[in-house]
Amino acid sequence: MEKEEIIQTGLALIESLKVAYLTTVDKDGLPQTRAVFNLKCKDMFPSLTPLFREQHNNFILYFTTSTFSEKIVQIKGNKRVCIYFCRPEEIHGLMLSGEIEIVNDSRLKKALWQNGWEKFYPDGPGDPAYTILRFNSGKVKGWYKGQPFAANISEFDGKSA
Amino acid sequence: MEKEEIIQTGLALIESLKVAYLTTVDKDGLPQTRAVFNLKCKDMFPSLTPLFREQHNNFILYFTTSTFSEKIVQIKGNKRVCIYFCRPEEIHGLMLSGEIEIVNDSRLKKALWQNGWEKFYPDGPGDPAYTILRFNSGKVKGWYKGQPFAANISEFDGKSA
Repeated sequence: MEKEEIIQTGLALIESLKVAYLTTVDKDGLPQTRAVFNLKCKDMFPSLTPLFREQHNNFILYFTTSTFSEKIVQIKGNKRVCIYFCRPEEIHGLMLSGEIEIVNDSRLKKALWQNGWEKFYPDGPGDPAYTILRFNSGKVKGWYKGQPFAANISEFDGKSA
Repeated sequence: MEKEEIIQTGLALIESLKVAYLTTVDKDGLPQTRAVFNLKCKDMFPSLTPLFREQHNNFILYFTTSTFSEKIVQIKGNKRVCIYFCRPEEIHGLMLSGEIEIVNDSRLKKALWQNGWEKFYPDGPGDPAYTILRFNSGKVKGWYKGQPFAANISEFDGKSA
């Protein structure tokens, strides 16, 4: 695939899936994977679509998690992670690897906040347990239509349609 | 959940899913995830069910891959991996972490061989590109019915029904 097709196919996959698989590495060097809600899923989080459309680099991903989760301990020890998106029935997979950071930006916390999250964070967007993670990928690779693909997307400056 | 329920629920999840997510760690310390066919899936690989039923420890997992794949390079450098199974629509996830090894056992290669794999390995079970990976997990954790669970299963000696 050409790079532009890799980017557009990848963005379309991301926007269609409810979960991503986030892998951190623990202090013993063991990778640890878990499903996390994909805030870029248009069906699941339609109110966030305008926010993400304004970003130039659409391979920047945000996730929410508990401040007191194991993954936060692991990220504080090692920022290198993998984010994987997959539609198994089509053997369509997209792997993004790079560094993830903990974001303390109260405006962003409010912008991402969804009704119903009070059950996880009773004090709302200001709840100390509510943490935002920001991931910026430099490299993508995966499988699509029976073929592997790979691209360096760090200089990508496009916008989604 | 009690340990026995964790084990039985985990085995049932594994036997129902066509793919697992295998994460290796590359030489730069970056985790790398990709979907791999789950040989324990009863629907997809029914001919293998008797083979796996004979195993005492059913959290031993086998995967096939190309000898010349990136994951083999990564495993030769670092055996520590994560295997993740997930049914996102039920928020049911199972993470197994431990070491994976490359198995050179021609009888096992023949026992796992499936019709149609000639398209990947033209010379059949003896094809030098055909490699078996064996994973033995000591720890499982995940989410089921809205709750996290974790168990040490290294001493598990049960059999699936």
